[in-house]
Amino acid sequence: MDAVQAAESGHPGAPMALAPLAYLLYTRHLKHNPADPAWPDRDRFVLSNGHASMLLYASLHLSGYDLPLGEIRAFRQWGSITPGHPEHGLTPGVETTTGPLGQGLANAVGMAAAEAHLAAVFNRDDHRIVDHHTWFICGDGDLMEGVSHEAASFAGHFGLGKLIGFYDDNRITIDGATDLTFSDDTARRFEGYGWQVLRVADVNDLEALDAAIAQARAETARPTLVIVRTIIGYGSPNRAGTAKAHGEALGAEEVARSKERLGWTATEPFTVPEEALAHWRRGNGALAFTNDAWRRALIAYAKAHPGEAREFGRRMQGDLPAGWQQAIPVFSAENGNVATRASSGTVLNALAAKVPELIGGSADLSGSNLTIIKDSPPFSAANAAGRNIHFGVREHGMGSIMNGMALHGGVIPYGGTFLVFSDYMRPAIRLAALMHQRVIYVFTHDSIGLGEDGPTHQPVEHLTALRTIPNVTVIRPGDAAETAEAWRAALLHKEGPVALVLTRQKVALIDRTGRGAATELARGGYVLAEGSRPSPDLVLIATGSEVGLALEARKRLEEGGQSTRVVSMPSQEFFLKQPSAYQASVLPAGVRRIVIEAAHSMSWHRFMAPGDVMIGIDHFGASAPYQRLYSEFGITVDRVVEAATA
Amino acid sequence: MDAVQAAESGHPGAPMALAPLAYLLYTRHLKHNPADPAWPDRDRFVLSNGHASMLLYASLHLSGYDLPLGEIRAFRQWGSITPGHPEHGLTPGVETTTGPLGQGLANAVGMAAAEAHLAAVFNRDDHRIVDHHTWFICGDGDLMEGVSHEAASFAGHFGLGKLIGFYDDNRITIDGATDLTFSDDTARRFEGYGWQVLRVADVNDLEALDAAIAQARAETARPTLVIVRTIIGYGSPNRAGTAKAHGEALGAEEVARSKERLGWTATEPFTVPEEALAHWRRGNGALAFTNDAWRRALIAYAKAHPGEAREFGRRMQGDLPAGWQQAIPVFSAENGNVATRASSGTVLNALAAKVPELIGGSADLSGSNLTIIKDSPPFSAANAAGRNIHFGVREHGMGSIMNGMALHGGVIPYGGTFLVFSDYMRPAIRLAALMHQRVIYVFTHDSIGLGEDGPTHQPVEHLTALRTIPNVTVIRPGDAAETAEAWRAALLHKEGPVALVLTRQKVALIDRTGRGAATELARGGYVLAEGSRPSPDLVLIATGSEVGLALEARKRLEEGGQSTRVVSMPSQEFFLKQPSAYQASVLPAGVRRIVIEAAHSMSWHRFMAPGDVMIGIDHFGASAPYQRLYSEFGITVDRVVEAATA
Repeated sequence: MDAVQAAESGHPGAPMALAPLAYLLYTRHLKHNPADPAWPDRDRFVLSNGHASMLLYASLHLSGYDLPLGEIRAFRQWGSITPGHPEHGLTPGVETTTGPLGQGLANAVGMAAAEAHLAAVFNRDDHRIVDHHTWFICGDGDLMEGVSHEAASFAGHFGLGKLIGFYDDNRITIDGATDLTFSDDTARRFEGYGWQVLRVADVNDLEALDAAIAQARAETARPTLVIVRTIIGYGSPNRAGTAKAHGEALGAEEVARSKERLGWTATEPFTVPEEALAHWRRGNGALAFTNDAWRRALIAYAKAHPGEAREFGRRMQGDLPAGWQQAIPVFSAENGNVATRASSGTVLNALAAKVPELIGGSADLSGSNLTIIKDSPPFSAANAAGRNIHFGVREHGMGSIMNGMALHGGVIPYGGTFLVFSDYMRPAIRLAALMHQRVIYVFTHDSIGLGEDGPTHQPVEHLTALRTIPNVTVIRPGDAAETAEAWRAALLHKEGPVALVLTRQKVALIDRTGRGAATELARGGYVLAEGSRPSPDLVLIATGSEVGLALEARKRLEEGGQSTRVVSMPSQEFFLKQPSAYQASVLPAGVRRIVIEAAHSMSWHRFMAPGDVMIGIDHFGASAPYQRLYSEFGITVDRVVEAATA
Repeated sequence: MDAVQAAESGHPGAPMALAPLAYLLYTRHLKHNPADPAWPDRDRFVLSNGHASMLLYASLHLSGYDLPLGEIRAFRQWGSITPGHPEHGLTPGVETTTGPLGQGLANAVGMAAAEAHLAAVFNRDDHRIVDHHTWFICGDGDLMEGVSHEAASFAGHFGLGKLIGFYDDNRITIDGATDLTFSDDTARRFEGYGWQVLRVADVNDLEALDAAIAQARAETARPTLVIVRTIIGYGSPNRAGTAKAHGEALGAEEVARSKERLGWTATEPFTVPEEALAHWRRGNGALAFTNDAWRRALIAYAKAHPGEAREFGRRMQGDLPAGWQQAIPVFSAENGNVATRASSGTVLNALAAKVPELIGGSADLSGSNLTIIKDSPPFSAANAAGRNIHFGVREHGMGSIMNGMALHGGVIPYGGTFLVFSDYMRPAIRLAALMHQRVIYVFTHDSIGLGEDGPTHQPVEHLTALRTIPNVTVIRPGDAAETAEAWRAALLHKEGPVALVLTRQKVALIDRTGRGAATELARGGYVLAEGSRPSPDLVLIATGSEVGLALEARKRLEEGGQSTRVVSMPSQEFFLKQPSAYQASVLPAGVRRIVIEAAHSMSWHRFMAPGDVMIGIDHFGASAPYQRLYSEFGITVDRVVEAATA
């Protein structure tokens, strides 16, 4: 109450309602150690209703995490580590960034999936070094969001028995009573997903909560949802149980009355009695002991299984294995014309053999995205060591689950779908970027080049839409060699998500004789083919399937006497990170440019001066064989030559 | 089979499985008239699993819609009206564009909601001129998608009893058996939403289907889902029941064998025996009679209720009421500083009084988006005449339901959320654009100007991401007067969705004395304030909350001797539709430009030459009071002046 009041902004209602549950979890149930927030085998706790951030900050402070009271006084202020919604990486003990509803729940599913996988891979009969629970709290809003369906259905199917969630059933949303719009029988719904569903009639009944938690722990084959009745703004004489308690400060007077009603005698805000702190932290010694015991167990494990222990350490550290880059295949023209999605499948399989932390799949398009690791079984309830995850037709869930897996650590998740359906998972992509997580998207069928499926399946605006998200790296390789480099770059890029954008249709392997090497992809854009004279008359910039087209156009233009440079620009983001001298050497100022990409022009204007030309597609596609579409929409060699000579 | 085989592309399996159901619906149950596909009171049929498009095309052809066999022969070819996935507006009888999974189901919910609303508004005891069902077929993929949860939960809550869906339970997805990833008890799940759930054990059992449909019709207070067991690729000796039947042509030999197995003796592809056509169309006379009867009923209604009948005709026609623009309020400085979201709420309420087809709401943020029509009750199961729809925390569902409502006709739906959450509904926005539907998004909290809620809630890239979708119109008004004009433009724009992008924070009313009128918003960009000398030294381009900042900067720059023009550019899309002479008159070539928008720069480069400056924000925001954020991130008058003088 005090923090929200001081900020005059925030959400007091849910923290007030859920305080007993947070108290119980942090003091009695979570396996954690405030002194070691990075303990690999700690329980993960996710506050999916992130607007209740003060619940989390208060719990972390009271538990003894490095979150001093001064930070709580600075709730929602510039430079504090107590932002309006919890942000991973900023605040110790915050396992994921939440606020956009439904995401946290799905992240928790991903964390539980990673735990199950790592336990299956690393535990030995006599050693259980991966053995922790994932907990979440969610609200009505989380459960109304579609991503909750995708993630919960996934968790039920895969039997993630160490996932325990609490639904804050307060029957109030921002607009008013939930019965304005929400009358789901949530228990029935989650039973339909194969979850164990329990009920606690009053969040203040700690014994009932304890009993439910015991029952949740006892069920190891199914995730558990505990539906807990609460009263939003509990304790506030005039706001409790009302929508007003949700998202605004109570006001100084109501804060005072609430404290009175709750029997709180201190009048000074932010008072934390010593005995309260001592009470919250009384178990910290035991927690530290458990942490130590785990470290000792890890040492014993290392003695019995030294190779596995090294691997476990390496993977939880996020380091790649020595020599992994040697696995990257070299392609030759003898492979014939190959779609970049197919080259990607080849590279992925080669890498997977050396990089066991690569685990992923597709949103029910594995045969199209070519994301299957051929020598691994499916990830399943019976065999969580499997590395092929059938995410189902659940793109949004896939994105959020991947975030949870990456946040857990020990795995590098990848996930495929058609580029056009990146729209379905956009909120998860944004959070991966905001949280700097290493996740890899395999987006195939990347343009009108997919042909007959038509405009509903043909991405046009998606490259722009992805490139504009801060900290997302988009790579659209032009041939098999660049595809190999794209995977290399994706694994090397630890600071955020990478989207690999790949063709459905076949492309030729670019002849590199006397030309720029594919390894130059790491610089984002590079001179692939120089003009015949020292300074070019014209620069053609192309990506992906249009690089081959640019090379053909160059040939025609050179025959016509124009010295034509071709720049392959698979990644604008990498290119923009290069020194400006390099950028200027690739794209010399004052030389006319033609950009060729079978996509919307919006992301290319920054590389164009007035008079430069973009050959792209700023409208929706159509259903027809792809060659016809390229021709009808004017993405052709003729058009490039025409534009260059105009 | 023949069409997919001829195209060597497409999805034969579901059409083969579902043929009995389509036959039954089109010949016995749908209230429709192939000769009058626009009959306002027709039943709506939605094929949510749009990849099964050949099922729909075959049914429409056989029923007698204007879809000749030649078009079916040209399945998935350039210029045909039989694209890979069904496209509304292209093919008679196709009620919505489907393919992106889950959307069709949610569109159907929107259609049923529109029907319920119009029935409540227009029907009189003695006259039921709005009284039809909405039917859909969906597959596993639709049901795995999160949007199915949002829409089904909505439909259950609002008791849409005239919505009848069929779930094609074939237990096969693209990746293989559904049990790789999907083990929902779908019946239990939908019962949790308050639906009636029925089962038919074999789609070939027409009597069982008929009985289920009778039971579905009998239930008027709840939507019905009929779970129908089918065998994908039914009839194909080697492909039936396999994932291979889903998405590839059977091959000529298997087509021949399948025909043999099904007892089909014609060997020529695309054979439609006359007696089959006659059988399918035997009920068409009765259907036409029903259609006529409805028209007679409408005449009787018009006699009894002439005003209502005129209104009904007008609304179903999509015409706005005479004189509606007079309702648009005029703001004066006496109103003080007002957030554009608040001005929007004022305009919406003024318009709502004159434009009764405006119906909508918010994804549980009505108090923030200010989308409530004050003199109307909530839309509810008990009172579907209410115009305030509580969509719930279901942005994606909201977008898709709005599409269904617009497609139904008779209503102009609007829906609000925070701009950042436009990401959640992006697939629906894209389809609105592709289908040219008039839907209005009220996106508030449009920048770091929302302050303390922090980066999870602060849009940065969303303006670019929306502007890059073909046929989406984005309007970000700069003050109350432009907000009024934005609503005018949104209602006048019939050809696609309009996104109104509005501030949380207050902005001043722009003093228009000697300046460009707000009505110029219709041209997208206009000279708001001329420079002091005939030809400006500098043009400042700004939108939304940054227009005021540009005017302040202009004052400082003019004081410093630079003739500074300010261009307000609330809509790039409108501006780009102007004649180039107009564009050049607003943005004279060769004059330096500074663009000011608290958003990502990507969409502005097209208006910038090398050396021009963008003052925006290409990174994520932070949690703090908004004035602090503007200052920390350099979106300030000082920075504009600095850039202008540098």
